[in-house]
Amino acid sequence: MHVAVLLFEDFETLDVFGPVEIFGRLKDEYSIGFYSLTGGYIGNSHGVSHLTLPLEELADGTDIFLIPGGYGTRKEVKNEKLIRSIRTISEKCEFVLSVCTGSALLARTQLIDSKVATSNKRAMDWVVTQGPDVNWQRKARWTVDGKYYTSSGVSAGIDMTLGFLSDRHGYQFAKKVANEVEYLWTEDKDQDPFYELYEN
Amino acid sequence: MHVAVLLFEDFETLDVFGPVEIFGRLKDEYSIGFYSLTGGYIGNSHGVSHLTLPLEELADGTDIFLIPGGYGTRKEVKNEKLIRSIRTISEKCEFVLSVCTGSALLARTQLIDSKVATSNKRAMDWVVTQGPDVNWQRKARWTVDGKYYTSSGVSAGIDMTLGFLSDRHGYQFAKKVANEVEYLWTEDKDQDPFYELYEN
Repeated sequence: MHVAVLLFEDFETLDVFGPVEIFGRLKDEYSIGFYSLTGGYIGNSHGVSHLTLPLEELADGTDIFLIPGGYGTRKEVKNEKLIRSIRTISEKCEFVLSVCTGSALLARTQLIDSKVATSNKRAMDWVVTQGPDVNWQRKARWTVDGKYYTSSGVSAGIDMTLGFLSDRHGYQFAKKVANEVEYLWTEDKDQDPFYELYEN
Repeated sequence: MHVAVLLFEDFETLDVFGPVEIFGRLKDEYSIGFYSLTGGYIGNSHGVSHLTLPLEELADGTDIFLIPGGYGTRKEVKNEKLIRSIRTISEKCEFVLSVCTGSALLARTQLIDSKVATSNKRAMDWVVTQGPDVNWQRKARWTVDGKYYTSSGVSAGIDMTLGFLSDRHGYQFAKKVANEVEYLWTEDKDQDPFYELYEN
């Protein structure tokens, strides 16, 4: 399966490269590509910059579409061309995974209206305004609703990706990957220690 | 402080971008640059590629030198020019941080002979052969010996970087960053659940 990773200016580093580490290890099952609205180099304030292909290359869809968060989402929720492109690709692809405030971009497409979704705990009050009809879950490490997976903040993207592997390949497969990267996987998507921290 | 991140072909994605996420958020305190032996684009099998400056730019040292691991280290431990360069830079800089099998490259410089260090649990038997006089700690999430920090496998680099912040800026400072990225920080460097998994 091909994992198409969306980049935009000021994406969050770990939102992208956490899931890329997990999928990237599984060369027999997954390939990875980076994409942006216009293609070319896309960077962030952490000094990271990566070459991307234009999203139009995904006009016929892809297998997995990964939408990260980051401060850039504050601007991109108003980028109608990008939102239309995310909508077209998301409709056609098999799975859509968002990390952190990436769910704000996904919410703007209206594709997850009435579906369960989550986001970064600290940005939650803003994110819900981007999709008033989404069934937002304030307490969740990640959510699954049909083909849509959405995760909480930054490192939760790693937990969600492992959860996705568990759903597709079984728990033992995902646990083996978590152990290989020596990651203490939060295995239960409903276990969210940061909800308690930020919302109470 | 400037964080100089070493890249080489087939570096491990999260070894690099975990610490980069943590340092990258702290723009008032840290800047980040990517470097390799010859400069130019350096990639890995996860489809990640990043532009680098040549290591000779660090001939006068730097503040923090970050050495990641990955399959590429198996080849690079024999790259005498790279090892000499790592030695020169490490001697001159204020702190050296290695992640995963990055400690094998550091061990080859002989700068950590008789110092405590650790590495990826699954690669440990190979890593120790790269520095027979290092005081290897098989059970450690990360180690500190003077200016040398070394971490266990992949995601342990995030824990070590937070530990480094705690040592420099205090525990509350580091904990705040961990909470911002919703990361369940293993705060005790001697707590190593993966030792039990792989070595017993």
